[in-house]
Amino acid sequence: MYKIAVLPGDGIGKEVIEEALKVLSAVSEKYGIEFDIKKYLFGGSAIDEYGTPYPKETEEACLESDAVLLGAVGGPKWDDLDGDKRPEAGLLALRKSLDVYANLRPAILFSSLKSASPLKDELLKDGLDVLVVRELTGGIYFGDRGTEKIDYGYKAYDTEAYTTKEIERIAHIAFKAARNRKKKVTSVDKANILDSSRLWRKVVNEVSKEYPDVDLNHQYVDNCSMQLIKDPSQFDVILTSNMFGDILSDEASQLTGSIGMLPSASLRGDKVGLYEPVHGSAPDIAGTKKANPLATILSVAMMLEYSFDRLDAANDIRKAVNELLEDGYRTSDLGSGIILNTEEMGDMVLKYLKR
Amino acid sequence: MYKIAVLPGDGIGKEVIEEALKVLSAVSEKYGIEFDIKKYLFGGSAIDEYGTPYPKETEEACLESDAVLLGAVGGPKWDDLDGDKRPEAGLLALRKSLDVYANLRPAILFSSLKSASPLKDELLKDGLDVLVVRELTGGIYFGDRGTEKIDYGYKAYDTEAYTTKEIERIAHIAFKAARNRKKKVTSVDKANILDSSRLWRKVVNEVSKEYPDVDLNHQYVDNCSMQLIKDPSQFDVILTSNMFGDILSDEASQLTGSIGMLPSASLRGDKVGLYEPVHGSAPDIAGTKKANPLATILSVAMMLEYSFDRLDAANDIRKAVNELLEDGYRTSDLGSGIILNTEEMGDMVLKYLKR
Ligand SMILES: [Mg+2]
Ligand SMILES: [Mg+2]
Repeated sequence: MYKIAVLPGDGIGKEVIEEALKVLSAVSEKYGIEFDIKKYLFGGSAIDEYGTPYPKETEEACLESDAVLLGAVGGPKWDDLDGDKRPEAGLLALRKSLDVYANLRPAILFSSLKSASPLKDELLKDGLDVLVVRELTGGIYFGDRGTEKIDYGYKAYDTEAYTTKEIERIAHIAFKAARNRKKKVTSVDKANILDSSRLWRKVVNEVSKEYPDVDLNHQYVDNCSMQLIKDPSQFDVILTSNMFGDILSDEASQLTGSIGMLPSASLRGDKVGLYEPVHGSAPDIAGTKKANPLATILSVAMMLEYSFDRLDAANDIRKAVNELLEDGYRTSDLGSGIILNTEEMGDMVLKYLKR
Repeated sequence: MYKIAVLPGDGIGKEVIEEALKVLSAVSEKYGIEFDIKKYLFGGSAIDEYGTPYPKETEEACLESDAVLLGAVGGPKWDDLDGDKRPEAGLLALRKSLDVYANLRPAILFSSLKSASPLKDELLKDGLDVLVVRELTGGIYFGDRGTEKIDYGYKAYDTEAYTTKEIERIAHIAFKAARNRKKKVTSVDKANILDSSRLWRKVVNEVSKEYPDVDLNHQYVDNCSMQLIKDPSQFDVILTSNMFGDILSDEASQLTGSIGMLPSASLRGDKVGLYEPVHGSAPDIAGTKKANPLATILSVAMMLEYSFDRLDAANDIRKAVNELLEDGYRTSDLGSGIILNTEEMGDMVLKYLKR
């Protein structure tokens, strides 16, 4: 019995979560996996009820769960609140309290959505399926920083720092993920310049010895930003630091042209994970039934793969999504085809899962 | 009379420089601008003669010049030398001795070379002409760094630091460059996280007040890496730090698909500049007359614009290059057309300049 805390959040978050829960329940039936699923308030909806985006009750439930499934948070209603009282502050608090240090962002281009990619068709012949594994709790985003008055104006600084342990644990997650994929890790750094990158490369090389079945190569970050555009099919898993991962995961997402399709996972070593779509709460389309639930449904697939070790069920969901897209079903954000609303798209996934 | 030190360097560097010098001499005649041009050994060729890639004689000449024109350095002959004795070490020493703190990298897609871009045609309707202005002597590439033994393994760190003065001077270069273009600066930072970025944004906002004719907007670096692919025509001048500029200038270059066409300039405030093609010494094609001289010829155009304030002559060269490409003339790296060798391409630029 796996315990799942579900945080629908705000806007379309609530709508797409409903469809993801239908899929979870279908998977439970088909594979005989039992889930204990409970919903909790989070983000703006929690602010309205408790005055805080991440209430104690929600936190306790998340900490006791095997996985957390999140919709999306935020909206104009809460935009005037102070920084640390806004729905988005709940996201940071949630990630911190779960202590998830690995952010996994797959950039997958489903072949029937090729036309949405900004890249020319000939570059996508071999498809596009890159998983960016980004270190999430270290590096320059959390290092020592400050601003001091000097003779003329100011001097401001930030510190990029990594320890052997921080690099080891994220590297293990990347190599393990590669084992379920094409068995290739590209570690990205700036080792020709940075001390932190030289340590990164050394530790990744060490960890790779435990995964002789996985190929490892190294790329400098500036070269990687070119290679992603020039020849994206060379990549399987990209392993990188917090800052480089922030840039490269967004660049890789954009190559698919369909941000409404992209799931994500944030993990720690014991398989506990937080799963959420990359898209936001889209207040402009909330309530119109136009939201695309597939990113959240694909986040459920990641949950099955990474938290519950059920690659079979995960790939089953992915296959269903791929097939219904091939057959022309779309939500309105995906361009022309047989247009379905949020609920209809959820039902269509169920139908293809049951075929 | 402008003094130009010319450093042909190694490999195809020597070949493309010859063509660039023919263009300089044609410009001198057409516009009545006088140049005092002398060649000096640099890179591998200097190692062979003096045992060092940046000999004293070359340095003295560069320091006395108004501009330095560089071909390219390096080759297999010198690959086994130690790091600080290699041709590439000469590049760092050259930039340092000239004290150039602004690196300007235009990513221009000539409309007749659209097919080389990895981007779909519909994204390039409005062309692609982005100038990345990268801070070159500060930031994390030059900050305090170290690696220390800790209880378990090591901790390594690097420091991203900027002062008001460093940001001011690079901002002025970006705003001035924008005045000769579409009058738009996009400053790229990570001000939602980094102290150095918050100072960056504040100072850029201040400097912008002196350029009321230039529009300024700000983007986070991760968003910019997406926007470059999603909608490259939104950009005119991108102003950013050393590290972000390293990544974004390479990403922007790749969008053109024609690295053999890309010039660069490295400047300081007094208009002294170093001009060089982005491509390397390409030892594999050296001596075959296949080298494309256009990146070096376009570097001469940048020299005319930035060091000699002759936008008219600079644009004349750009127009000539654009027109001969429209008429189907190509070097072999540019795909099919009327294929010219290095010398023939140089002569063709002269012919179009004289029309
Ligand atoms: Mg980001
Ligand atoms: Mg670079």
